[in-house]
Amino acid sequence: MGLLVLKFGGTSVANIPAIENVANKVAGEIQNGHKVAVVVSAMAGVTNQLVAYCSEINHVFDPLEYDAVVASGEQVTSGLLALALQKRGIQARSWMGWQVPIVTNDVHGKARIQSIESEALKKSVMNGDVAVIAGFQGVTPDGRITTLGRGGSDTSAVAVAAALKADRCDIYTDVHGVYTADPRIVNRARKINKISYEEMLEMASVGAKVLHTRSVELAMKERVPVQVLSSFESALGSDLPGTLVVGEDAIVEQEVVSSVTYSRDEAKVTLRSLPDIPGVAAKVFGPLADASINVDMIVQNLSPDHKKTDITFTVTRADLSKALEVLKNIARDLPGTLVESSADVAKVSVIGIGMRSHVGVAQKMFKTLAEKGINIQVITTSEIKVSVLISDEYTELAVRSLHTAYGLDHGG
Amino acid sequence: MGLLVLKFGGTSVANIPAIENVANKVAGEIQNGHKVAVVVSAMAGVTNQLVAYCSEINHVFDPLEYDAVVASGEQVTSGLLALALQKRGIQARSWMGWQVPIVTNDVHGKARIQSIESEALKKSVMNGDVAVIAGFQGVTPDGRITTLGRGGSDTSAVAVAAALKADRCDIYTDVHGVYTADPRIVNRARKINKISYEEMLEMASVGAKVLHTRSVELAMKERVPVQVLSSFESALGSDLPGTLVVGEDAIVEQEVVSSVTYSRDEAKVTLRSLPDIPGVAAKVFGPLADASINVDMIVQNLSPDHKKTDITFTVTRADLSKALEVLKNIARDLPGTLVESSADVAKVSVIGIGMRSHVGVAQKMFKTLAEKGINIQVITTSEIKVSVLISDEYTELAVRSLHTAYGLDHGG
Repeated sequence: MGLLVLKFGGTSVANIPAIENVANKVAGEIQNGHKVAVVVSAMAGVTNQLVAYCSEINHVFDPLEYDAVVASGEQVTSGLLALALQKRGIQARSWMGWQVPIVTNDVHGKARIQSIESEALKKSVMNGDVAVIAGFQGVTPDGRITTLGRGGSDTSAVAVAAALKADRCDIYTDVHGVYTADPRIVNRARKINKISYEEMLEMASVGAKVLHTRSVELAMKERVPVQVLSSFESALGSDLPGTLVVGEDAIVEQEVVSSVTYSRDEAKVTLRSLPDIPGVAAKVFGPLADASINVDMIVQNLSPDHKKTDITFTVTRADLSKALEVLKNIARDLPGTLVESSADVAKVSVIGIGMRSHVGVAQKMFKTLAEKGINIQVITTSEIKVSVLISDEYTELAVRSLHTAYGLDHGG
Repeated sequence: MGLLVLKFGGTSVANIPAIENVANKVAGEIQNGHKVAVVVSAMAGVTNQLVAYCSEINHVFDPLEYDAVVASGEQVTSGLLALALQKRGIQARSWMGWQVPIVTNDVHGKARIQSIESEALKKSVMNGDVAVIAGFQGVTPDGRITTLGRGGSDTSAVAVAAALKADRCDIYTDVHGVYTADPRIVNRARKINKISYEEMLEMASVGAKVLHTRSVELAMKERVPVQVLSSFESALGSDLPGTLVVGEDAIVEQEVVSSVTYSRDEAKVTLRSLPDIPGVAAKVFGPLADASINVDMIVQNLSPDHKKTDITFTVTRADLSKALEVLKNIARDLPGTLVESSADVAKVSVIGIGMRSHVGVAQKMFKTLAEKGINIQVITTSEIKVSVLISDEYTELAVRSLHTAYGLDHGG
């Protein structure tokens, strides 16, 4: 018996039968003796429709009014789920962001939660009511509606769980949990039972979009145990059917590598024969940052005579042409500089907190890829991650080989 | 130059081009030098969709959650219209019911406005911002969302106009104004330039659904001049293109009869041979009221021997079968009573404040109908209205004949 926060995304509340299904899941937790608060997204497709209305009027829209429009989607689902729960004899009420209130700053469209005045909410939940909270939305101190941006409902759920000091925050989604690798590529991939916040953050940053980075950061900061699980399978009966994201101290048996991830949304840019003078990197990356182009992996090499330098980095494929436009201008000021690019690359990463205490993890990666004849173009590492850039036609082969090499195959 | 409140209904904001059209009308009033507050309904069809969602979950729904769900429609249009105005270089912001706040009682689904704390709203409007207010919705003193029921946005608009002490409240709709008769039946019907609150109330009560009764009552109480006009014609240029609803003191030239109306949503019930004892009417109408059946015209006659009585009354056609069910039980306790009914009836009314000071108005009605061979089944009168129940096949003939007889035909 405890206090749970359950979060259901847009596909989980896409229509009335789906909402009834969610109500059944909530009813199951009530029967298990838990107090429950639920955070819901808008019905799948509704937010996109509302955004399209705004864009149809003006592609440069006032974010204050944009927020008022798009926040309405979550209002609908919170009311409907409350109705579906009441039909099952469960006391329930909806809570909009401004009713709790979930107070945010005034950065409309991607506001950050500043505080949750949870006294009334907590009283209601402790009184046995299911609180159905509209996710993704908040209110500024002066009473304007805000939205939290991409992944906002996950963040709402974790923040509510922290405010209510919930025992767990269950994020229901369309996957069964977090996997050792993408099951569409690696059929021997296994669902991970427990993973650390740090690993989840690294996974989010390399393209495994199960939980949004902000919600994991918040969960880590507030020490909220988060479970990722499927809303389309019966979760009742089995104790923890999904993947639990917790502090690393709560993970008894740590794997050296817990997952192999990949991202094809990568493009590589190389600047050759740059003059090797102080400030040349700033000259390159400053204008890219000004153009809101996110640069990821960066490596720099000196030429043998130490007078020229090569810089290679990656951007998303969507940003490549914009990046090349910016670099063309830069190259004009740096005579002799050549700009090369390729969009046929992929980033493959191995992630695991066990790396901190084990040596040879990167070496095993390089060796495994070499054995398959896969050339590594760029390498970057963090404390718990090694990423390599390879030709994207080798993506599946690389991920599968690494999955086997690190002992992650199920039954293996 | 003054302060105007403009209200646009669901068909006027049915899609983005319609909202752009509304923005143009608002821009026109701004150019005329007016300060403007706008009240909007939900996009046509949206409220019905939201109500359908609630009914799909449970046909007996909690009105608190129903209100949270359906109020979202007006939130969307208020934000979108603010965006469309901003595109035209006009400062504008949306106001939800809870933001103003428009405080109501807690009779969810048909709440009544108790107060509008208009200080912030007025300051914003006086500062030159167009206030775009979500109609139909309010908030209880303890912060729950309410809706005002049928015609609620009209009531919102009049209440906002009263709170802001606006010079006029313009209700944009899909008709050009109030007519002397339904133009679909009477092609010589004329648009009325000015009509009194009292006449509008009588017209609403007999089925001419241009403005909802509550909004007219409120306008009369608060002395708000209300104009009814079309949102699909250019109103700019002509001074008062619609119908102005005002106090009767503001109407210089009063017609004896200002309009002829009809309603086909009528059914007649006759109870024959009731025992003529005290309390028999209460015995009949009490259970009907308990069953939420609204009874309209009532006449009672004594039999020649003063021992039996006949009662005839009307209900809406939708309520007829329910009424007959209730009456069957009553008749069981009153031996000898016969229940007869007919749904082939229509109510035709003539309305005019001039009746108060003119005699012979009812007599002219009876004579006109008699000349056409139309039998009158029931008659009821008020101070400014005479209504008759006739066989519904004569409806058009009766309305046209009366329109001519009272000198209302245009060019006539």
